Amino acid sequence: MDELNSTNSHLTVAEYLIKRLYEIGVLHVFGVPGDYILNFYAMLTNSRITVINTCDEQGAGFAADAYARINGFGVVCVTYNVGGLKVINTTAEAYAEKSPVLVIAGAPGLEERKKYTLLHHKVKEYDDQYQIFKRITVASTELRENINAYEEIDRVLAEIIQKKGPGYIELRRDIVNQVPEHDIKSSTVIIKSEIGSQKIHPDVLEQIVNRVNRSTRPVIMAGVEIARNHLGHYIHDLANKAQIPLVSSMLGKSAIDEANPLYLGVYAGVIENQQVRDYVESSDCLLLMGVILNDVNLGANTAKLNPDYLITLSSEGCMIGSRSYSGAGLEAIPELCEKVFVSHNISQIPLTKAQRNSPFFPTNTKITAERLFLAVNSLLNESVLLIADVGDSGMGCMGITVPKPMQFLCPIYYSSLGFSVPAAIGAKAARPDLRPLVIVGDGAFQMTGMEISTAARYLMDPIVIILNNSGFGTERPMIDGPFNDVSLWRYHRIPDILESGRGYLVQTEDEFVQALKESMSSKDLSIIEVVLEKTDITPQLRRICEELAKGVNNK
Amino acid sequence: MDELNSTNSHLTVAEYLIKRLYEIGVLHVFGVPGDYILNFYAMLTNSRITVINTCDEQGAGFAADAYARINGFGVVCVTYNVGGLKVINTTAEAYAEKSPVLVIAGAPGLEERKKYTLLHHKVKEYDDQYQIFKRITVASTELRENINAYEEIDRVLAEIIQKKGPGYIELRRDIVNQVPEHDIKSSTVIIKSEIGSQKIHPDVLEQIVNRVNRSTRPVIMAGVEIARNHLGHYIHDLANKAQIPLVSSMLGKSAIDEANPLYLGVYAGVIENQQVRDYVESSDCLLLMGVILNDVNLGANTAKLNPDYLITLSSEGCMIGSRSYSGAGLEAIPELCEKVFVSHNISQIPLTKAQRNSPFFPTNTKITAERLFLAVNSLLNESVLLIADVGDSGMGCMGITVPKPMQFLCPIYYSSLGFSVPAAIGAKAARPDLRPLVIVGDGAFQMTGMEISTAARYLMDPIVIILNNSGFGTERPMIDGPFNDVSLWRYHRIPDILESGRGYLVQTEDEFVQALKESMSSKDLSIIEVVLEKTDITPQLRRICEELAKGVNNK
Repeated sequence: MDELNSTNSHLTVAEYLIKRLYEIGVLHVFGVPGDYILNFYAMLTNSRITVINTCDEQGAGFAADAYARINGFGVVCVTYNVGGLKVINTTAEAYAEKSPVLVIAGAPGLEERKKYTLLHHKVKEYDDQYQIFKRITVASTELRENINAYEEIDRVLAEIIQKKGPGYIELRRDIVNQVPEHDIKSSTVIIKSEIGSQKIHPDVLEQIVNRVNRSTRPVIMAGVEIARNHLGHYIHDLANKAQIPLVSSMLGKSAIDEANPLYLGVYAGVIENQQVRDYVESSDCLLLMGVILNDVNLGANTAKLNPDYLITLSSEGCMIGSRSYSGAGLEAIPELCEKVFVSHNISQIPLTKAQRNSPFFPTNTKITAERLFLAVNSLLNESVLLIADVGDSGMGCMGITVPKPMQFLCPIYYSSLGFSVPAAIGAKAARPDLRPLVIVGDGAFQMTGMEISTAARYLMDPIVIILNNSGFGTERPMIDGPFNDVSLWRYHRIPDILESGRGYLVQTEDEFVQALKESMSSKDLSIIEVVLEKTDITPQLRRICEELAKGVNNK
Repeated sequence: MDELNSTNSHLTVAEYLIKRLYEIGVLHVFGVPGDYILNFYAMLTNSRITVINTCDEQGAGFAADAYARINGFGVVCVTYNVGGLKVINTTAEAYAEKSPVLVIAGAPGLEERKKYTLLHHKVKEYDDQYQIFKRITVASTELRENINAYEEIDRVLAEIIQKKGPGYIELRRDIVNQVPEHDIKSSTVIIKSEIGSQKIHPDVLEQIVNRVNRSTRPVIMAGVEIARNHLGHYIHDLANKAQIPLVSSMLGKSAIDEANPLYLGVYAGVIENQQVRDYVESSDCLLLMGVILNDVNLGANTAKLNPDYLITLSSEGCMIGSRSYSGAGLEAIPELCEKVFVSHNISQIPLTKAQRNSPFFPTNTKITAERLFLAVNSLLNESVLLIADVGDSGMGCMGITVPKPMQFLCPIYYSSLGFSVPAAIGAKAARPDLRPLVIVGDGAFQMTGMEISTAARYLMDPIVIILNNSGFGTERPMIDGPFNDVSLWRYHRIPDILESGRGYLVQTEDEFVQALKESMSSKDLSIIEVVLEKTDITPQLRRICEELAKGVNNK
């Protein structure tokens, strides 16, 4: 919580918005300027916030989403329609995966709307942009004359923070430099609240504790909401004192510490490790904490979780078995974790740890997707921030042990290709102490990969591993055709375009390991193009594709 | 008009849709596949329609828009949300500029929606994608169980063709291979109608003829709707027999034959040629034909057109002076042009023709933006299809004489950067006999320019001239700052990435002319990177920026 002093009451709308963003920890804004937002860009440039210009608005949207996932709040700033409508998809991603991203979009002012029927960039109605964003955000506002801009800004920021989802502020360009006539009410300025204020009923809490204590094979599954709300340490406390094994959902990967000896791995039905699956599905008390029960987390709906044995705490509320309880869900986690628990006997947990951080012995044979992820796993260190695009990049990473919590990003549920390279820009801005390591397929790279030039411009040092298997490997096992091929790019030559960084073309395990080691020990931006066979995919991807193919064929 | 025979009544939804598209002249579909649309992609691949896969959906959207502008109908085909929401902006462009583009988007089927709350790619509600597209299209439908899919397909196609705007068909994946239970009614299959069927009242027509005949300085201004409805030849007939000078609006450029001796140039208030402006603004009878009165066409609202002297015929209807007449607008043009007119004395029209196709004598000095367009103008021939991106690329092209009608594309009203390179792909597919010549700024190129690899993949031969002035030249004169800079790219080296085509880096007039001549005489895809001074812009852009700056500064 923080409060503003009375000196704020003569701030312009732009000054107030920038001040509030800075106060809640926004040090970077991503975007592409345009004439309807240009005066605000000038204000931003003169503030303590750094502007990062991407090649395309799509890149800015993904970068802001990544920044938000790490920093707790991200901002993308764009012009009217031709900017705003390009970040609909990235904003939808933020909604689907609970990322607190604010979209600031410019728009024509009131007088010009009245005077002219058609101004450039307009579609049907002047408010199309606003109406579209309203549909895919948790809070939105048009800042215009006669509304309390201070209050509206605070309301939208607060809802983004509390609900962990995207918000939208339309900044009509005639309002940017206006001083609102309203005062700032102290009641409106409390905008920082990590989780809601609802309380759980003591009886319900007691019932959960009893269930856990009575169980013989309890398991905690941590989901994405644990990451977004930074609740991982509570879960570790509970797991350690009660000796409860931990798993994470696909989307929740790295929410908790994967170096914890109690951590088994990712649970995702048929997709991930069979031993983890068996253990979780035979649990007599599975605590789902902050887990969203979507088809991806449920292993393409192959999960076999007995509803009677589930305890669910999430932003949706609390459930014990199939019974819902009103009141707190996610908010109950800190209180629950402070309770007294018995210590469980966990001598029989599967030894999935064997594969973690295990050494990798490269050979001089052609590298495969499966072996590539083992090689990456062996070389990761605590200063790496691993970012996976969707498709096999994400599926393959599910088997990797992330050395430290919150150092892995992958939008595996919304699964919009092209996230990873721009995400590395957002991630590096949020965590300049870490080295982004991107794993991306060729298809995804062709969508947004040239944002690597933005990384070069801002002197960032990502390492980008491109899995070049000549197309969309995720789709080939479902239905194949020439539509799954992509254009020929010589990715490793991109540093010549940028006049920056190093490029590698690798085919064998030896070459890959050497290129990755060299990249990690240098400070240069690096692109490692790995040539894979067209049909070479990881076992995880093969398994999920088999399931997804049923949907494609309506089975 | 065309009718289907009874053998259609057992076609699946996909078969019927593909058949209808083919019948209305769609030979190419642009897009990126995904699992919710994969079964339809397989059907498309086995049809007579060619699928063109772009790097990103945004590229497919722009390509389909360009194809539609030339061919009369374009199609972009994408997957659920992560595909669809990426083409919101390009669909908005099609709406704003009256381009008949159909978006076909995949979606989950009914049973899976019922069974699962959250399937990958979903945002808030299953119908978000449909609801968003509804807002920015002229017709839309969700093809699902219990609706007459044949009828719905025909309805949407017909509205797209008649209204010249984008449409949307959501193809739930469980419906693709179903045979609808409905019959095909003959009344639903008439879907080709270039312009509406409304008639103009004979008295109104007579009044227009009289006005024209009585006037001493009549002028015809052709707008974008003349291009979209292929009405240019009617206007030439009228202009020739009545000896009426012709101009076009910015967005309508190339709708009429610029080689016609009666053609004066583009009228756009303060922006374009002063002599043209003076002539048009002193006209006592200005026929606005298919012109959309937006701020761009009106020269950033600097146009001074006396309403009493205007005759307006457009899709909005008919106006004489300030008086509106119900009934036909655009539809009246053929009838009007067949009337008997007196021949006017046009000895005093300005000699703006001097600058057209005039020879260009290159020097060995640094090339400027202004001189570059003169050089391009001198080298154009009838086999070139000129495509300008927005910003100075578009503004500079306004002074160029397009050798043949309908061989120029530029979305100068909606003005979304990044149109031109993907548009070259769509244009080449629609007109394989022509050579796309793209003029694009560095900022716009960084958004979508790597779609040049798609051109290489499909063995297309565009020539791409990149105006490298280190950033957004359109914004610098309004408010400048580091946000107007773009990343460093060595554009001329891109052929190394593609292993295809030629790259040129030019600085002087000599070098530019030589590179362009060489590119035009070879059959290779070519990239000509032209290094310009950071602040070097054309006079047209300088003038529009001065006007646009007033909006930015709320003056």
